[in-house]
Amino acid sequence: MKFTKLTLGTAAAALLPLAAFAQEATEEAAAAVSTSPAGTETGFILTTFMFLVAGFLVMWMGAGFSMLEAGLVRSKNVTMQLTKNIALFSIAGIMYYLIGYNLMYPGDGWTIPNVLGAFGTTGLEDVGVGADAVDLTYASVGSDFFFQLMFCATTASIVSGTLAERIKLWPFLIFTVILTGLIYPIQASWKWGGGFLDANYGFLDFAGSTVVHSVGGWAALAGALVLGPRLGKYTKDGKVNAFPGSNLTLATLGTFILWLGWFGFNGRIFANTNTAAAGGALAALVMTQLLYKKVDLTMVLNGALGGLVSITAEPLTPGLGAATLIGAFGGVLVVLAVPLLDKLKIDDVVGAIPVHLVCGIYGTIAVVFTNSDATLGGQLISIVIVGIFVFVVSLVIWFLLKAIMGIRVSEEDEYMGLDKAELGMEAYPEFTS
Amino acid sequence: MKFTKLTLGTAAAALLPLAAFAQEATEEAAAAVSTSPAGTETGFILTTFMFLVAGFLVMWMGAGFSMLEAGLVRSKNVTMQLTKNIALFSIAGIMYYLIGYNLMYPGDGWTIPNVLGAFGTTGLEDVGVGADAVDLTYASVGSDFFFQLMFCATTASIVSGTLAERIKLWPFLIFTVILTGLIYPIQASWKWGGGFLDANYGFLDFAGSTVVHSVGGWAALAGALVLGPRLGKYTKDGKVNAFPGSNLTLATLGTFILWLGWFGFNGRIFANTNTAAAGGALAALVMTQLLYKKVDLTMVLNGALGGLVSITAEPLTPGLGAATLIGAFGGVLVVLAVPLLDKLKIDDVVGAIPVHLVCGIYGTIAVVFTNSDATLGGQLISIVIVGIFVFVVSLVIWFLLKAIMGIRVSEEDEYMGLDKAELGMEAYPEFTS
Amino acid sequence: MKFTKLTLGTAAAALLPLAAFAQEATEEAAAAVSTSPAGTETGFILTTFMFLVAGFLVMWMGAGFSMLEAGLVRSKNVTMQLTKNIALFSIAGIMYYLIGYNLMYPGDGWTIPNVLGAFGTTGLEDVGVGADAVDLTYASVGSDFFFQLMFCATTASIVSGTLAERIKLWPFLIFTVILTGLIYPIQASWKWGGGFLDANYGFLDFAGSTVVHSVGGWAALAGALVLGPRLGKYTKDGKVNAFPGSNLTLATLGTFILWLGWFGFNGRIFANTNTAAAGGALAALVMTQLLYKKVDLTMVLNGALGGLVSITAEPLTPGLGAATLIGAFGGVLVVLAVPLLDKLKIDDVVGAIPVHLVCGIYGTIAVVFTNSDATLGGQLISIVIVGIFVFVVSLVIWFLLKAIMGIRVSEEDEYMGLDKAELGMEAYPEFTS
Repeated sequence: MKFTKLTLGTAAAALLPLAAFAQEATEEAAAAVSTSPAGTETGFILTTFMFLVAGFLVMWMGAGFSMLEAGLVRSKNVTMQLTKNIALFSIAGIMYYLIGYNLMYPGDGWTIPNVLGAFGTTGLEDVGVGADAVDLTYASVGSDFFFQLMFCATTASIVSGTLAERIKLWPFLIFTVILTGLIYPIQASWKWGGGFLDANYGFLDFAGSTVVHSVGGWAALAGALVLGPRLGKYTKDGKVNAFPGSNLTLATLGTFILWLGWFGFNGRIFANTNTAAAGGALAALVMTQLLYKKVDLTMVLNGALGGLVSITAEPLTPGLGAATLIGAFGGVLVVLAVPLLDKLKIDDVVGAIPVHLVCGIYGTIAVVFTNSDATLGGQLISIVIVGIFVFVVSLVIWFLLKAIMGIRVSEEDEYMGLDKAELGMEAYPEFTS
Repeated sequence: MKFTKLTLGTAAAALLPLAAFAQEATEEAAAAVSTSPAGTETGFILTTFMFLVAGFLVMWMGAGFSMLEAGLVRSKNVTMQLTKNIALFSIAGIMYYLIGYNLMYPGDGWTIPNVLGAFGTTGLEDVGVGADAVDLTYASVGSDFFFQLMFCATTASIVSGTLAERIKLWPFLIFTVILTGLIYPIQASWKWGGGFLDANYGFLDFAGSTVVHSVGGWAALAGALVLGPRLGKYTKDGKVNAFPGSNLTLATLGTFILWLGWFGFNGRIFANTNTAAAGGALAALVMTQLLYKKVDLTMVLNGALGGLVSITAEPLTPGLGAATLIGAFGGVLVVLAVPLLDKLKIDDVVGAIPVHLVCGIYGTIAVVFTNSDATLGGQLISIVIVGIFVFVVSLVIWFLLKAIMGIRVSEEDEYMGLDKAELGMEAYPEFTS
Repeated sequence: MKFTKLTLGTAAAALLPLAAFAQEATEEAAAAVSTSPAGTETGFILTTFMFLVAGFLVMWMGAGFSMLEAGLVRSKNVTMQLTKNIALFSIAGIMYYLIGYNLMYPGDGWTIPNVLGAFGTTGLEDVGVGADAVDLTYASVGSDFFFQLMFCATTASIVSGTLAERIKLWPFLIFTVILTGLIYPIQASWKWGGGFLDANYGFLDFAGSTVVHSVGGWAALAGALVLGPRLGKYTKDGKVNAFPGSNLTLATLGTFILWLGWFGFNGRIFANTNTAAAGGALAALVMTQLLYKKVDLTMVLNGALGGLVSITAEPLTPGLGAATLIGAFGGVLVVLAVPLLDKLKIDDVVGAIPVHLVCGIYGTIAVVFTNSDATLGGQLISIVIVGIFVFVVSLVIWFLLKAIMGIRVSEEDEYMGLDKAELGMEAYPEFTS
C-alpha cells in the first residue's frame, strides 16, 4: 500500500481505491508515481476523486434500500418505511460527524488503546486543510469522511427493513442514533481504525462483510426478537402467511441501485463484485425453480444481494470463477435461510438477516478460500467478537427502549397501517381500495 | 485558482472541481502539478474528467425532478408532468447550444460589456479542439458545455413543479425556451460569465443558490401568480384543501436522486453538501412533529432539498457543524414557508418556491456567515437585481403567453386531468378507478 | 490513439475514454504524458478509472431497461419482465466470463483468423496482474472486462422488451445464454476484436450502433417473427389494439436512466450524446403533435432513445448542431417505424426494434456524414454482414427452442398474465382489481 493515511490503520487503507489500483500496477510503478512531488500531488488528487466517486455510489445505496424496502412492505406502511429511510440516512450523517468518525479513526488518540477511539467532532480544517497541514500522502479529509460515512449509513439501512410494518418511528430513530454514533464506529475501529482485531488477530474484511453487513444484521436480529413478528404472520397452527410486497418494480429498482452502489469499490473488484451478484441471483433463480417449481423474484433479488455481501470481505484475491461461486453460494444460503427464519418465527420483513447477517458471516469466512493471509481462526474469532458485542448491546438498547417508551404500535394501528396511524399520510392514496 | 479558463470569469472557475481540490492541496502543490508540461496535460485530463462526472450527476437531477414531481401530483396529471420534464430537459439542451452558452460565457465578446453576452451557437471545434487551439489550462469545451448546461436545465425543472396540474403543455414549453435560452444565461453571465455582479459587487454564489435556484423560483412564482391556484385548492371560506401526491415512493426516490445529483460539486464540498441535506431533513422532521404532532414525509423531503439549496452558495468555507446548521435552518424555512404561501393563496404544487426561492435567497445571504470575502451588501444587492430581472421578465412573458394563446386548461379538462384531456394517455391506466 | 491495448484491435481502443481525451488534447500533449514512466503509470490509472466509471454507467442501463420495460407492459406481466431483466443481466455476466470475452478479444489467439476468436474463460491474473506481466500502456484487465461486459448485457436487454408478455421464461433465458456467450461476442470480434470488418472493410462503429444495438434488434426481430404477436393485438379486421403500459412514471425513469447510462462514453462525446437524445425526444414530440394532434409520451421516450442509438456509431466527429440533427432524425424514424411494424403485424411490446434496429442501422450509416474516414460501402456491407449473421442464427435458435420446448405460454396463461401463471407472484398485488 502506497497511500496509507497515517491516522488510519493500514487495514482501512485497504479500502483505498487507488491503493488497490497501485497493487495491480505493481508496487514499483506505484512508487514511481508517488515519489516525485508532482506525482504525490497527482496521487492525492486521484485518491480524493476516487473517494468521492466511490462515496457517491455508496450514498446511492440509501436510495436502493429505500426502494427495496418500500417495494417489499404492504402499501399501508410505505410512507413510514420511506420516512424511516430518509431519516436514518440523515441521522447517520450527523452522528458520524458529531462522534462516529473520530471514534472509528482515532489515530493516536485512543481513549482505551485499540478498543475505544477518540471522542470529538470531525474538524475538516484542523485535520486536512491549511497551507501547512495538508498530508498529501492520502486524500482530503472531507472526501474520506464522506466515503466512510456512507458505510455507517448502510448499516442502519439494514435494520429498518427487518423491523418494518410494526415498529414505532421514534424508538427506531433513537436506536439509529446509537447505532450510527456508537455501536458501528466502535466495532469498526477494531478493524478499520487499526484496533485489536486488526492488530492482534489479523482479521481481514476488505469492505465490511462483518464490519458493515453482519453488524446491521445482528442489530436487526436483536430488534426482531424483542419486537416480535407482525400480527397474523405466524398462526397458532404453525402456518406462515406470506405478506406480498406491494411493488416489486420498486424492489427490483432498489436491488439494481444497491448492485450499482456496491461498485463503490474498484478495479478488478468491480468485475468480481458484479459476477458475485450475478452468481447469487442465478443460484437463487435455479434454487427456487427446483425447490418450488416457480422462480421467485424476491428471492432472486435477495440472492443478488446475498452474493454481493458474500464477496464484500474479499473482492480482490478471487478470480472471476471463484468470485462467481462465492456469490452463488451466498444466493443458496439466502434461499435456505429465509424459510429457516420463518420456522424460528423470526419475522424479517425484507429478508435482511439472511442477506446481511448470514451472508456476511459466510463471506468473512470465505476470505480464507482465496487469500492466504487470512486464517480461519482469526476470521472466526473476529466474527464472534463483533457479533457478541453488537447483538448484546443492541438487545439491551431495544429492551430499554421497550421499557421506557414502547417500541411497537398498537394492534389497531398495525392493522390500519403505520401510514395512516402514525403519519396520517398514505403513499398511494389513489391506488388502493 | 490555478485552472482558470480564460473565456470565463474567475468566478465561474470557482465551479471547477479541480480548482477546489487544488485549494485544499495548497496552492504551492497545485503549482507543482501545473507547471511541467506533463502536469498541465494531466490537469487538463483530470479537470475534463471531473466536469464529466459532475455533469452526469447534475444531469441525473433531471430524473430526480421528474420523479419528485410525478410523485407529488395526482395520478390524473402524471403523464403530463413526465412529458413536461423530459421535454424541458431536451429544450434546455438545444437552447443552451443555440444561444445560451455564449450568452453566458462571452469571454471578450460581450454585446454590452458585463451585461449582455455574445450571440452565437456553441462551436466545440473552434474553441477547444484542433492541434493548435487547445487551451490546456482548463478543460475540454465539450465537458464544460455539458456541465454548465445541466445547471441551466435544473432551473427549468424548478418551474414545472410549481405550475403542475393546470398549465397547458405548449405555453409551458415556450416559456422554457425563453428561460433556458435567454433569462437564465443572461443573469448567469452577470456572475459566472464575469459580468457586473461579479466584477463590481463581489457577489459570491458558488454553485447557484441565487443564479440557479432563486431564478427558477422567481420564474415559478411569476407563473403561479398569473396562472392562479388549482380548482378547489382554496375554498371561499378560507379553507386550504390538501391534494395528496399520488406516489410518495417516487417522490422519495426523486429526492434521493436530487441529493445524489447535488454532489456534482466536490471535495469537502461533498461532505458539507451531504450534511446540509441531512440537517434540512431532520429539522423538517422535528418541526412537523412539534407543530403537527405527526412527521410529514413530504416536508422531510422538501426539507432535505431546502438544506441542499441553502448550502449551494457556499459549500466550501463552512465546517461540518456550520454546514449542518445552515442546512437545518433551510429545512425550518421550508416548513414555515409552505403554509405561508397557502395563506397568500399562491398554489405551488410541489413546494418549489419554499425550497428554491426562499432557501436560495437565504443560502446566498448565509455566505457571509462563513466566508469573509462576502459582504452582506454585495449579496443582497445581487439577490435583488437578479430577482427583479427574472421576476419581471417572467411576469411579462407569462402575461403575453396568456394573452396570445392562453396558458390554462379549461375547467373540465382540469377536473378530468391533463393526461386524458391533453394527452389521451394515463400514467397508471390499471391502478386507479 | 496513444493507449492501445495490444491484445485489442485498434478499433476497440477507440472505446477508450482516455484515448478520446488524448485526441482532444492533441497528440503531442498525449505523447508527453505517456512517455515518462510516471506518465505511463498515471495514464494506466486514469484509463482504468475511466473504464470503471464508464462501466458503472453502462451497468446502470440494466436498471433502465428493467424500469422501461416494466413500465410499458401491462401490470399482469410486470414481475415476469423484472425477473427476465435481472436474470439476463446475471447470465450475461457469467457467459461473458466463461466464453464471451476471449471470443471477442482473442488478441493473437484467433481460432479462425479474424473470424472466430479464442475459447477460454477470462483469467484476470494471467493477463493483467502480477509483478512482471502488467501492461501499463492500457488499463487493468478487470476494468476492461467489466466495461466490455456491460455492452454485452445491453444487447440482451433489447431482446427482452420486444418479446414481453408472451414468451416463456426458460427459453428466453436459454436464448440469452447463446446471445451473450456466442452471438454477440463473435460478431463484436469482427469489429472491436480487430477481425475482418475492422481490418478489411474499414468499418467504423464507435460504441455500437451496429455491434450492440442492431444486434439486439435483429435478435428481437427474429424472436418476434417466430413467437407471433400477443393475443388480441391485431384483430382480423385489421385493427391494431393499443395495450397501454401500466406505469409511465417507471418508463420515464427508465429512459432517464438509459440517457444517463449512455454517458458511459466521454469528453465532447457527452455533449454530443446529450444533444442527440434531446433532438430525438423533441423530434418525436413535435411529430406526434403534428401527426396525431397529441403529444405521445411513450414516443417521446423512445425518440430520446432513438437519438441516443443514432449518435452511438459516431459521437466524436459531429459538432453539436450536427449531433442534434442526427439524433432528431432518429426520433423521426422511431415515430414512423412504430406504426409500420404494426402494419406488418410484428408485435414489439416496447418499441425496441424501431429504437435499436432501425436507428442502429441509420446511425451506422450517418457516420459518413461527419467522419471522412468512413465509407458508405464499408458501413453498408458491415451492417448487412452483421445483420444476416445475427438474424439467421437467432432465427434458427428460436425455431429450435420452439420445436424442442415451446417458447410461448398457453392462451389461458397469456390472458391471466405471466406473473400469476408462470411465477405465482404479482408485482402490484394491492393496486389492480
